[in-house]
Amino acid sequence: MKAGGVELGEAKNSAPRRGVNRGISILDFILRLLAFIGTLGSAIAMATTNETLPFFTRFIRFRAEYDDLPTFTFFVIANAIVSGYLILSLPLSIFNIIRSSAQKSRIILVIFDTAILALLTAGASAAAAIVYLAHKGNARVNWFAICQQFNSFCERTSASLIGSFAGIAVFILIMVLSAVALYRR
Amino acid sequence: MKAGGVELGEAKNSAPRRGVNRGISILDFILRLLAFIGTLGSAIAMATTNETLPFFTRFIRFRAEYDDLPTFTFFVIANAIVSGYLILSLPLSIFNIIRSSAQKSRIILVIFDTAILALLTAGASAAAAIVYLAHKGNARVNWFAICQQFNSFCERTSASLIGSFAGIAVFILIMVLSAVALYRR
Repeated sequence: MKAGGVELGEAKNSAPRRGVNRGISILDFILRLLAFIGTLGSAIAMATTNETLPFFTRFIRFRAEYDDLPTFTFFVIANAIVSGYLILSLPLSIFNIIRSSAQKSRIILVIFDTAILALLTAGASAAAAIVYLAHKGNARVNWFAICQQFNSFCERTSASLIGSFAGIAVFILIMVLSAVALYRR
Repeated sequence: MKAGGVELGEAKNSAPRRGVNRGISILDFILRLLAFIGTLGSAIAMATTNETLPFFTRFIRFRAEYDDLPTFTFFVIANAIVSGYLILSLPLSIFNIIRSSAQKSRIILVIFDTAILALLTAGASAAAAIVYLAHKGNARVNWFAICQQFNSFCERTSASLIGSFAGIAVFILIMVLSAVALYRR
């Protein structure tokens, strides 16, 4: 009788716990989808940015493209890699929803998530540093604010940072959720 | 007799597991110390960088300091915050060594580590983007390579990135170890 009571108590305890873990897994899946949309949007927005000014001399057309600045190329590549990774991680995330007590798949996700978070942050903040420079320039080292000429180019590159930084925030949330799920199993 | 056998088996299983977890905790402590040295070194190296060129006109002295570029200021602040956090996290890391089965303290560390990793990566890669620009310049937008004049300034800022990027690598290792420790408890 006593042993039966203990077993019942354990079952009572583990059922809601498993429910919470499934809830976390579903939230994880939704967040991954959101981060995918954000980073893919960023990559596309940046990669399609170019502006040709309406005046030109005989030899020069004033034209700015995103790949004039190597940092923006890195930004596009980083965001493309991250969104590709997010799509590949979705099946594992679905597996976590179905088998909410699975631990190995969570560990694998946490490890890759960490590396991918670092890559995304690197791309986004390097691009942000260049965008800042493009807007403000720097008088001390004679770098001019190119945004005075290339207005729409600058607006477009600035806007494409949003999806990337939103992706970073979502990624941090995903990692916190994974840690909580590992703790609560 | 049977129950006793099961208990013995469990004890046999959990003793080496606890030993491995303690090993992970000790490694975690050492890695935190290393990352602290790296990030503090980076912050100090960058914050003490300045160069005055040996020639000047009547009105201008050619002088470059790290805070001429706002990104470098951010780099110093980010590295200072990270090294401060690492010092504050050491007591918790020691607690993990002593009580190797503790889980809450690990979860807290993982959550803060994630945010701090993002901050460190942002600072380091933004500074790297600017250092790259200082070395190579960009002909398309008329930003000149200032390294041709400010040679030692450039070398110093480039070198101070090393500690920061080493810190990022160590941080990723710390997070992987934490995930493994949470999994193996």
